[in-house]
Amino acid sequence: KQYRIAVIPGDGIGKEVMPEGQRVLEAAAKKHGVSLHFDHFDFSSWDYYEKHGQMMPDDWKDKIGKHDAIYFGAVGWPAKIPDHVSLWGSLIKFRREFDQYVNLRPVRLMPGVPSPLAGRKPGDIDFWVVRENTEGEYSSVGGRMFPDTDREFVTQQTVMTRTGVDRILKFAFELAQSRPKKHLTSATKSNGISITMPYWDERVEAMAKTFPGVRWDKYHIDILTANFVLHPDWFDVVVGSNLFGDILSDLGPACTGTIGIAPSGNINPEGNFPSVFEPVHGSAPDIAGQGIANPIGMIWSGAMMLEHLGEKDAGQSIVEAIERTLAERTLRTKDLGGNADTTACGKAVADMVD
Amino acid sequence: KQYRIAVIPGDGIGKEVMPEGQRVLEAAAKKHGVSLHFDHFDFSSWDYYEKHGQMMPDDWKDKIGKHDAIYFGAVGWPAKIPDHVSLWGSLIKFRREFDQYVNLRPVRLMPGVPSPLAGRKPGDIDFWVVRENTEGEYSSVGGRMFPDTDREFVTQQTVMTRTGVDRILKFAFELAQSRPKKHLTSATKSNGISITMPYWDERVEAMAKTFPGVRWDKYHIDILTANFVLHPDWFDVVVGSNLFGDILSDLGPACTGTIGIAPSGNINPEGNFPSVFEPVHGSAPDIAGQGIANPIGMIWSGAMMLEHLGEKDAGQSIVEAIERTLAERTLRTKDLGGNADTTACGKAVADMVD
Ligand SMILES: CC(C)[C@H](C(=O)O)[C@@H](O)C(=O)O
Ligand SMILES: CC(C)[C@H](C(=O)O)[C@@H](O)C(=O)O
Repeated sequence: KQYRIAVIPGDGIGKEVMPEGQRVLEAAAKKHGVSLHFDHFDFSSWDYYEKHGQMMPDDWKDKIGKHDAIYFGAVGWPAKIPDHVSLWGSLIKFRREFDQYVNLRPVRLMPGVPSPLAGRKPGDIDFWVVRENTEGEYSSVGGRMFPDTDREFVTQQTVMTRTGVDRILKFAFELAQSRPKKHLTSATKSNGISITMPYWDERVEAMAKTFPGVRWDKYHIDILTANFVLHPDWFDVVVGSNLFGDILSDLGPACTGTIGIAPSGNINPEGNFPSVFEPVHGSAPDIAGQGIANPIGMIWSGAMMLEHLGEKDAGQSIVEAIERTLAERTLRTKDLGGNADTTACGKAVADMVD
Repeated sequence: KQYRIAVIPGDGIGKEVMPEGQRVLEAAAKKHGVSLHFDHFDFSSWDYYEKHGQMMPDDWKDKIGKHDAIYFGAVGWPAKIPDHVSLWGSLIKFRREFDQYVNLRPVRLMPGVPSPLAGRKPGDIDFWVVRENTEGEYSSVGGRMFPDTDREFVTQQTVMTRTGVDRILKFAFELAQSRPKKHLTSATKSNGISITMPYWDERVEAMAKTFPGVRWDKYHIDILTANFVLHPDWFDVVVGSNLFGDILSDLGPACTGTIGIAPSGNINPEGNFPSVFEPVHGSAPDIAGQGIANPIGMIWSGAMMLEHLGEKDAGQSIVEAIERTLAERTLRTKDLGGNADTTACGKAVADMVD
């Protein structure tokens, strides 16, 4: 079977790291007898917006909705276009309209990446953050009353549906069950947020009953962020609401040294719609155009994409190639104390794939 | 003038650290010619609840509402009484009914406390987290629909009022203005939480105009938590909503080694009602009764109380005494690798006060 991949480089360094991502995907595909076909799209970028006054064509769903996956660089250029236009006009649209209800990110201390946490070594930190990606705190329900007076107030609702909560918990429990430690941690704040969070806890407890092999616990989000710093070795799979997952999936990678190399997947597990794989970093206008961006986040996202497509071995071979590349100072990019440029680093990973 | 302090030891180790807090307060008061009068109350504890079926007497406001401040140990004993009864029946009541709209916590790397962050030394990390303490995400507005069906959903509103937002921002800007660096950081998430958070940003911008001497910036909460770990030296005063402030004021102390010694103030700046000063740690049932609890959080909270009452020198002398005590291994408690018990540590600080 041939996989059809929609490639969207987007803005800034997205355009520079994408070719390296593709280079490595092609190398892994060749070694593992996987067939990939790439279609390129120029929308979801500032250039496209400048020309068309919108982030994407009206028929964007027809253009990319039938692909097996979307490989995405980076979007946003705050100096030129406000975030709520660029992000809500592309990324958030994908999440909502392609029902990508899982946001998945690894938190893993890699060789060659100095940890900001004292005394932690590769292997010590290795877990996944599973984030609900469609509802919760990111609802658009709410408004403002008595504008421009002393009585002015705004409200915004957090919305949790049975469907929305149960399906993300099921995904997280299944992931935990598939791992050696079989341990799930739920992020809550039911001692302060007194309606939605107790509901979340209730659903976790119900779901846990159907996964008797998984050991689970829960922490309030405040102490949980503290424990990411103090005890990152405690975690295996961590699940949280849209907001809590967002926080934990930036904090986790920060604890492993740099969010500059972390990958992410925005996943529709049923495969009704394509999933999006993208590096966690943004378009980084400050270093765009210099050829020095670190391509590892893009490449690692490619590995996640292959695993999602069912090509586990090919994906795993990329992760191992990344580890071997990062271990060599000369093959790392400048941000990690190395002296390789974007292309040299990408080529190194491609060569390492086996 | 004599200050009247309401003393509420509460539960668990609250009862053990309170006498040390008072010991040090008395020592500092004596040296600095400050007169303190303590009134003890046994409510806001499991013992009281067991006898009376409620956390506090009906006339709790008459009993402690006229005091100059409340010195509070710890409350809660999850094995015996659910958090929403113990916490919402005391702490949260104080915050709401005494309009303690500021929650204030220092984040400071102290001598003798190993930092979980690699290579950070005392002096490198020294900032304040200012948390809105009465509204925001901790509203009780919301509910559940279609219970026990597949269509079930819950909602909870975040509520931000002009009054509520402006007064916490004013406090934070004033605090920043009083410090050498004059730098304020605002926690937001306006790229995802699209109604309340842009409003918060709008009010920050408006307030900033009236504090031209303060340099300010803002970060989305996800990357802000990452920056607490990666760049804790960037911060001077950080202000956030009820939830964001809650997270940051646990994460911050964690980055400085232990939330076991952090103090906090729940403050009504106008002095219409008494403010509450309490250690960040809880009642710690697991070590209660052994005399090994670390009293520094309680003692440090006393220092904050004196500063709030206008007795800056006396408060400052306690903070310095804490630093000198922590620097001596033999004077620290076990949790910090020392061998002092609760009383020995408290006495050491009291002796150091000058
Ligand atoms: C106990 C809980 C309700 C409380 C809060 O979230 O406000 C606690 O975490 C705190 O920070 O004092
Ligand atoms: C850009 C922003 C809306 C987004 C989010 O909060 O979901 C980002 O932080 C992310 O994690 O992908």
